[in-house]
Amino acid sequence: MGTFVFDFAQGSKEQKDLLGGKGANLAEMTRLGLPVPPGFTISTDACRAYLEHGSEPVGLEAEVDAHLWALERRMGRRLGDPKDPLLVSVRSGAKFSMPGMMETVLDVGLNDHSVVGLAEQSGDERFATDSYRRLLQMFGSTVLGVPSDRFEERIEALKADRGVASDAELVTADLGVLVGEFKAIIEDHTGDPFPQAPRDQLRLAIHAVFDSWNTPRAALYRRQERIPEDLGTAVNVQAMVFGNRGEASGSGVCFTRDPATGATGVYGDYLANAQGEDVVAGIRNTVPLADLAGIDRASYDELRLIMSVLEHHYRDMCDLEFTIEDGHLWMLQTRVGKRTPQAAVRIAVDMVDEELIDLDEALSRVTGHQLASLMFPRFEPDRSRRPVTTGMNASPGAAVGRVVLDSETAVEWAERGEEVILVRKETAPDDLPGMVAARGILTARGGKTSHAAVVARGMGRTCVCGAEAITIDLDQRRFRIRGGPEVAEGDVVSIDGGTGEVFLGEVPVGHSDVVRYLEGEHVDDPVAAGVGRLLKHADALRRLGVRANADTPEDAARARRFGAGGVGLCRTEHMFLGERRELVEDLVVARDADEQAAALRKLLPLQRQDFSDILAAMDGLPVTIRLIDPPLHEFLPDLTDLAVRVAIEDERRVDDPHGHELLVAVRRLHEQNPMLGLRGVRLGIVVPGLFAMQARAVAEAAADRIDLGDDPRPELMVPLVASERELRMVRDQLEEVVAAVAVERGVELSIPVGTMIELPRAAVTADRIAENADFFSFGTNDLTQTTWGFSRDDVEAEFFPTYRDRGILPISPFESIDVQGVGELVRLATRLGRDTKPNLHLGVCGEHGGDPESIHFFEEIALDYVSCSPFRVPVARWEAARAVLARR
Amino acid sequence: MGTFVFDFAQGSKEQKDLLGGKGANLAEMTRLGLPVPPGFTISTDACRAYLEHGSEPVGLEAEVDAHLWALERRMGRRLGDPKDPLLVSVRSGAKFSMPGMMETVLDVGLNDHSVVGLAEQSGDERFATDSYRRLLQMFGSTVLGVPSDRFEERIEALKADRGVASDAELVTADLGVLVGEFKAIIEDHTGDPFPQAPRDQLRLAIHAVFDSWNTPRAALYRRQERIPEDLGTAVNVQAMVFGNRGEASGSGVCFTRDPATGATGVYGDYLANAQGEDVVAGIRNTVPLADLAGIDRASYDELRLIMSVLEHHYRDMCDLEFTIEDGHLWMLQTRVGKRTPQAAVRIAVDMVDEELIDLDEALSRVTGHQLASLMFPRFEPDRSRRPVTTGMNASPGAAVGRVVLDSETAVEWAERGEEVILVRKETAPDDLPGMVAARGILTARGGKTSHAAVVARGMGRTCVCGAEAITIDLDQRRFRIRGGPEVAEGDVVSIDGGTGEVFLGEVPVGHSDVVRYLEGEHVDDPVAAGVGRLLKHADALRRLGVRANADTPEDAARARRFGAGGVGLCRTEHMFLGERRELVEDLVVARDADEQAAALRKLLPLQRQDFSDILAAMDGLPVTIRLIDPPLHEFLPDLTDLAVRVAIEDERRVDDPHGHELLVAVRRLHEQNPMLGLRGVRLGIVVPGLFAMQARAVAEAAADRIDLGDDPRPELMVPLVASERELRMVRDQLEEVVAAVAVERGVELSIPVGTMIELPRAAVTADRIAENADFFSFGTNDLTQTTWGFSRDDVEAEFFPTYRDRGILPISPFESIDVQGVGELVRLATRLGRDTKPNLHLGVCGEHGGDPESIHFFEEIALDYVSCSPFRVPVARWEAARAVLARR
Repeated sequence: MGTFVFDFAQGSKEQKDLLGGKGANLAEMTRLGLPVPPGFTISTDACRAYLEHGSEPVGLEAEVDAHLWALERRMGRRLGDPKDPLLVSVRSGAKFSMPGMMETVLDVGLNDHSVVGLAEQSGDERFATDSYRRLLQMFGSTVLGVPSDRFEERIEALKADRGVASDAELVTADLGVLVGEFKAIIEDHTGDPFPQAPRDQLRLAIHAVFDSWNTPRAALYRRQERIPEDLGTAVNVQAMVFGNRGEASGSGVCFTRDPATGATGVYGDYLANAQGEDVVAGIRNTVPLADLAGIDRASYDELRLIMSVLEHHYRDMCDLEFTIEDGHLWMLQTRVGKRTPQAAVRIAVDMVDEELIDLDEALSRVTGHQLASLMFPRFEPDRSRRPVTTGMNASPGAAVGRVVLDSETAVEWAERGEEVILVRKETAPDDLPGMVAARGILTARGGKTSHAAVVARGMGRTCVCGAEAITIDLDQRRFRIRGGPEVAEGDVVSIDGGTGEVFLGEVPVGHSDVVRYLEGEHVDDPVAAGVGRLLKHADALRRLGVRANADTPEDAARARRFGAGGVGLCRTEHMFLGERRELVEDLVVARDADEQAAALRKLLPLQRQDFSDILAAMDGLPVTIRLIDPPLHEFLPDLTDLAVRVAIEDERRVDDPHGHELLVAVRRLHEQNPMLGLRGVRLGIVVPGLFAMQARAVAEAAADRIDLGDDPRPELMVPLVASERELRMVRDQLEEVVAAVAVERGVELSIPVGTMIELPRAAVTADRIAENADFFSFGTNDLTQTTWGFSRDDVEAEFFPTYRDRGILPISPFESIDVQGVGELVRLATRLGRDTKPNLHLGVCGEHGGDPESIHFFEEIALDYVSCSPFRVPVARWEAARAVLARR
Repeated sequence: MGTFVFDFAQGSKEQKDLLGGKGANLAEMTRLGLPVPPGFTISTDACRAYLEHGSEPVGLEAEVDAHLWALERRMGRRLGDPKDPLLVSVRSGAKFSMPGMMETVLDVGLNDHSVVGLAEQSGDERFATDSYRRLLQMFGSTVLGVPSDRFEERIEALKADRGVASDAELVTADLGVLVGEFKAIIEDHTGDPFPQAPRDQLRLAIHAVFDSWNTPRAALYRRQERIPEDLGTAVNVQAMVFGNRGEASGSGVCFTRDPATGATGVYGDYLANAQGEDVVAGIRNTVPLADLAGIDRASYDELRLIMSVLEHHYRDMCDLEFTIEDGHLWMLQTRVGKRTPQAAVRIAVDMVDEELIDLDEALSRVTGHQLASLMFPRFEPDRSRRPVTTGMNASPGAAVGRVVLDSETAVEWAERGEEVILVRKETAPDDLPGMVAARGILTARGGKTSHAAVVARGMGRTCVCGAEAITIDLDQRRFRIRGGPEVAEGDVVSIDGGTGEVFLGEVPVGHSDVVRYLEGEHVDDPVAAGVGRLLKHADALRRLGVRANADTPEDAARARRFGAGGVGLCRTEHMFLGERRELVEDLVVARDADEQAAALRKLLPLQRQDFSDILAAMDGLPVTIRLIDPPLHEFLPDLTDLAVRVAIEDERRVDDPHGHELLVAVRRLHEQNPMLGLRGVRLGIVVPGLFAMQARAVAEAAADRIDLGDDPRPELMVPLVASERELRMVRDQLEEVVAAVAVERGVELSIPVGTMIELPRAAVTADRIAENADFFSFGTNDLTQTTWGFSRDDVEAEFFPTYRDRGILPISPFESIDVQGVGELVRLATRLGRDTKPNLHLGVCGEHGGDPESIHFFEEIALDYVSCSPFRVPVARWEAARAVLARR
C-alpha cells in the first residue's frame, strides 16, 4: 500500500476523509464491479502536506509514477504515446462537495505528437485536434494562470471570421489554427512554451488542483457552508473516456429517484456525441434519459441495472454521471444525491416501506431545518418574476398584503378584513399588535436577530428585515426604494421570507400541506403523511421534552396541536402593552406606594383573565409563567422623540404640561444601558407588589380553573436572577401569596417556583440558587448577551458581518448556541444545580430551544426539556430524536 | 463547666465568639488578678438558641441559678436581700463592639424591701432611693417597653415644681415621689406591677438583652459595619459597684496611649461621685485623669500599674472603664482601644521599638483603609462649622475653590491661576479636562461608583457626588441648594471628600504629611516616618507586584514615586479627547477607508509623543498600554441634545448643514446599549488601521527612547476580547507592525502582547485565549458588569440602595470584588490560563486592584500583580503584604 496514492480498487466509500467524496465513490463502484475507467486517487494527506510546505511531500512523485505505470499496463497505452496515447483526467474531490469551486484538467497527455496518434487511433482528426485545443485552453487557464478571456477572444474572432455561430461548425483546420494560437498565447503569458512532456503536464495539473483549495472563492464557500479550512482536497487521475466520438457515444447525468419530489422512477438527461461538461453547460439541448432506451437499448438497460445496484448498495437515492464511448458504458461518478426537503421526506419513508432502511435511519436523513422549510407557505415558482429589492430572510414564508406603515393602521385595516404587510424602519415591542395583525413584516433596519425577526419567527410570521434600500416617509405615508419605485400605503406587496425578496403586487401563494396536516386537517399528501409518521417515531425516541414559548391562548392552543408538552415560557410583558399601556405608565411614573398600589389593583383582574385563558388552553400540562422582565423604558415614549416634541412645542408656545411631566419621568427612568438596568427580578424587588400582583393573578386563575373542573399546572419563573438572595426573597413572597389564595379559595394549589438562568453569575452560583428553585430555565439569549458582552442588535448590525467574513464568528451565537463559551456556562450551571438538587428540572427557553444544532447540545448535557416558538415545536421534537440517534 | 454560663474566672480574651468582647475581656482581667467585680457571662450560644426558639434553652435557668448562688456566696450578700442586698448589672456584649446599639440594665435586685437594706448598709438613703428610681426607669423602658418620655416628663415636672435645674438638686423625698410615680407608670403601661421578685427582674433583663440583638437599629448597624447577622450577643451579669457613694467614689474612662495621636502617656477622664454612664453623658464636667493623682493617689497609682499590665498583656493600646467605690478601685471593662489612623501607625511603630510587637504585627494592625485616609488633605477641625448640604463621600480629601459649572470654564480659570471646584449634574468623559483642572468635583447625581467618583479617585481628586439637594441652572450660571442658599459661578466653596460635606466660603486645609513624605519631601512627622518604615517592611513581605493605572506622564511619575513597579493600565481613550476630538470625529464619521486612513495619519504623531513621555517616566519598568476601548458614541455629542438643537434650529429656520450631517452620523452610531456595543477589540477589527496606528505609535516611541539610551518596556493590551480568534487576528497584526518598525528603525523591539479578561466568555475560554497572550489583565469593572448584568451607574442610582437595605448586596460589587460570582470567574480563568501557559503573567487593573479586601482575594488566587490608581499604590503595597500575613 502506498502512503499517498491509492488505486480505485483499493478504497471504499467510507474513506472520504482520505480519498475525498469523488475518489471514495469511484473506489466503491470499482469494488462493486461496475464499469469505471481505471485510475487512482492522490489523498488529502498529500494535499495537506503540499499546502503546508509549498512543495510535494517526499515520495509522492515516485508513488504517482508507480500508479501511472500500472494504469498504462492495464490500459495497454502509454501516457502521451505518439502512436496510441493514454489520456487522463485530473479532478479535485474534497471530503465535502464544493461544486464548481475547484479545478479539473481533462485530456492530460496530449501534445504535438500524441495528438496525431489519437487522430489515427480514433480515426477522427477533428476530435483529436479539438481535444488538444481543449487541453491547451483548460491547462492554460487553470494550471498556468492565463486569463481565460485570451482564449475565448480567439475563438470568437475565428467564428466571426468564418461566419459561423457555434464551435461545432468550426472545421478541423480551424481547430488546428486555434491550437497554434493557444500555444502562442501560453508562451506569451508565461514566457515558456506549453509543456510537451506528458509527465510534466500531469504533475503541474495535480499541483493546480491542490492549490485550488486555497482560492478566495473556495475559502469563502467553505466559510459559508461551515466546512473546516484544513481538510484539503484529494486528486483523482483517471483514464479518459470520450462521449464525443460520434453518435454511438454520449454523456448523461441521472438520479435514481426524483430529487424534487422523491417519486420513484428514472430522472436524468442525456446528450449524444458529447462530453459530460457539455451536458451541464447546456450548449445543445439534452434529451430525457428515458429516450436513451430508443438510442442505445443495451446501454440503457445496463444503466438501469447499475442504478438499482447503487441504490440498494447505498440504501439511498444516488446521482450518477456516465459516458458512453462507442456503445460502451462508463461510470464517472456517483454520490448520494441532493434533494429538496419534500423529496428527503418522501424518499426516507418510501425506503422504510421498501425495507431498505429502518425508521431511525429515515429520521436521521431528514434534518430539522428541512422539516422547518416544509412548514412555511411559498410563492408559486415563476422564473420571470423580479424583486424590487431584497433584504434578509429573517422568518420564512410567503406573505401578500397591503402596505401599512404603523401598528395602529395594521390593526385597523386587519379588523376590517384586509390582509396587510407591516412596513417599519424597525420594530419595537409597541408594534406587537400590528405584527400580530399583519401577514408579514418588512423592515428597513436590523438583522436576523432583530426584534422584528425574533418576534416574527416566534409567531411564525413571514419577515424580511434589513432591506436597506427602503426609506420610509411617514408624513407622505409611503416608502421609497433606492433605485426603484415608490410604494404608497395601501399598495399590495409580496414578501418571501425564505429568500428575502420583495415584490410589487400580488404573487400567488401555495400553502404548506405539512402545517395543515399537523394542525389536524385532512391532507392527501405523501410528504405530510411521511412527516407525521416520522414525528410519531421521533416522539417515541426522544428523551428531551418539548414545550412552547407562548404568551397567548391562541399560541398555546396551536403549540398543543403541534405536540408541545406544555408552555415553557409565557412572557407577561406583552400583556402590559396595547390598551393597558396607560396603566403601566401610571405604575412607572407613580410617585408613591399608594399610586403604585392603585395601578396594580387595576392590572390584577386583567392579568387573571390572561392566565386563566392560557391555563385552559394547556389544561393538564405545565405552563411556566415568567414574571415581568423587560426594561421599564420600553413602556415609555422614546426620550429623543419626546424631548424634540416638547422643545418644538415650547418654541411654538404650545402649552403641554403633561408632555413636560412625562419628559421628566422619562429622563428620570432613562438608562444608558437598559439591558443592564432595572429589569427582571430587580424590578420585582424595587417596585413592591408587582410580582405579588402577578402571583396572585396566577393563583386566582388556577383556582378559577379548578372550580371549573380543570387541571391547571402553572409554574412561576423569576427572571434575571443573579444572586441566591434575590430568589430567596422573591420566592418567599410568591409562596406567601399563593398560600393566601389557596386559603381564600379553599383549593389546593401547588405552584412550583423556579428561575431563569440568564446571567453568568447565576450560572456560576447555580449551586446556591438551586436551593430555592424547583426548576431552572436557561435564558440563552440574555446569557449570550452578557457572556459575550454584546447586545443582540449590535451583533447583527455593526460588527457581525465583519466578524463572519473574518471567520471569528461563523454563525451568530444568538442563532446557534456558542458551545465553547455560553454552552460551558450552561453545562456548569447544570452540574452545580444538580449537585445541590438531583431532581432539579432543567430546560431552556431562549431562541436556541428551537435551533437544531443547539438541541443536540442540550441533549448532550441532558437537559430535561427545550421550549421554543409554537412553529418550531415539530422541529424540536424531530431534532430531539435525531440527537438521540446521533449519540448512539 | 456549664453549657451556657461561664464564671469570669473561667474565660479568656480568646473566647470572644462564645463570651462576646466584653465578657472575654472581663474574664481575661479576672485571670490576670486585676480587681474585677465578680460575675458571670451567659454565652452567645444561649442567645442564639433563645432567638431561634423564642424562649430560653433548656438548662439555662438552672445554670444561671447556680452561678448566681456562687456569686452570692462569694459576695456574702443575696440578690434582693431586704437587709443587705446584692445588686447586679446586666450588660450586653457581642463579639464585635456595637456601641450604644444594645441594652444594659443596672441595679437589678432592688425592690420595695431591698431599697431599705441598701440605704441602711450604705448609710445613704438618697443614694438608695435614687438607685431604685434608676432601676425603675431603666427596667421600665428597656425591659418592659414603656416609652422613656413618660419617665422623663415626670422628672422635668418635679424639677419645675421644686424650682431646681438638675437631678442632683432633688432631695431624697423628691426621689421617693418619683419611685411611686414610676411604679404607677409601669403598671399603667403594662397592666402589671413592677416585678418585685429579684430573680424575675434578672431573667427579664437577660431576655431584654437577648432581644436587643434584633432591634432595627442594631440590624442596620450590623449591615453598615458588615457584622454577620447570626452571631447573637452574650450577657454579662456582674456585682454592682458604686462610684456615686460620695467624694471617695467616682468613675472614669482612660486610654493607655493617646487615641488621637498615638503618643504615650495617660489619657482619660474622671468624675468624682458618679457612675460610669455619668462620665459619658457629660452631665457634670469631668477632670483629666492626671488630676486623680491629687484626689486619690493610691487608686491612681494602682490604675497606672493596671494600665501598664494590660498594655503589656494585650501588647496594644487599651481603653479601660473603672469605678472607685469608697477608695476601692474596680475594673469594669477593657478592650483594645479604637484609634485614629494616625494613632494606629504611631502606636504600631512605637510598640515595635518597645519590643512589644514585631514589624509583621505592626503592619497587620494598620489597615490599608487607614493608610488611605492618611493620604488625603483635610479641613482643620472646627465644631462650629456647618455644611450647606451633604452628598456622598466619593473621593477623600479637602478641596477649596471657586465654583465653575462646566469643563471649559474650569480649564480657562485654572489656566489663569484660579483654584476651582467643578460643579456638574454628573460628569462624562468630556468633562475630563475640567476634572483635571479642578481641585475638586461636586455632582448632584450619581453614587460612589459614578463616573465622577471613579475618575476622581483615580486622579486623587476630592469628590463629593450625589448631592441631591443641588439644582444647577446653567443659563443663570448658578446652582440652588434645596432649603439653602444660591451659589453663583465664581463663589468660593469647600468640599470634604471624607465626609461628603459642602461648605460656603473658604475652609482652611491641612495637607497630608504622609503624601509629602512619600513624594520625597523632608517631613518631620513620626506618623509619616512610621508609614515609610512599615511600607519598606511591606515591600519585603509582599508577593504581589503593584503597578499603577496611569494615562499621563505626570501620573506615571507620581505612581513611580509612590512605589509602583510599572504601569499596569495606560488607557488610550483619554488621549483622544480635548483638542484631538475633531480628529476622532473625522474618524468616526468617515465614509470610506481613505477618510479613515487620513484621520489615523494625523493621530499617529500625537500618540507617539503620548507614549514616549509615559515610557520616559517609567523607564526600565513595564508599561501596559491598552488599545482604545470605549464606545465610539462617547466621542460624539449626546443624541437627544443634538436632536433637540437641530429641531429648534429648523423651527427657527437657522441653516445648519453641519448639524444635520452630524445628527445623521450620531443616529447611525447610536447604540441602545453602548456598553454592549462596538467597543474594544471589536472596534479594532471593524475600523481597519486603528490598532495598527496605535501599535506603530508605541513601537516608534519605544524606538525613540532606545535611541536616547533609555530602556523602554511597553506592553500592548487588547481590550474586550471574547474569543481566541479575535486575539489571534489582532496579535498577528500588532506583531507585524512592531516587526516592521524594528526593521525601519534598526532596533530590537520585544513588546509582549496580552489581553484584558473582562468578559465572562473570555474567562470561560481562557485556556484557548492564553495560547495567544503573554499576559492577562483582569478588567474586573467590566467583568462585574457583564457577570451581574447590570451597569455601574445603575447599581448606584437605581436599585443598589434597595438591595443594600435588603441585604442582597452588602457592598457594591464595583467597590469590593464579588468573590462568589465574579471572583469565581477570575479564579477559573487563572487556572485555565496557567494550564495552557504556566508562565502566563496575571494581573488585575480594575478598580478592585486598589481595594484592600479584593487584594486579599487576588493574593489568595496567586495573581502576579495588581494595578491601581497612583494614589492607591502605597495602599496596595501595604495590603499585599497584609494579605501575605493574613494567610500565614
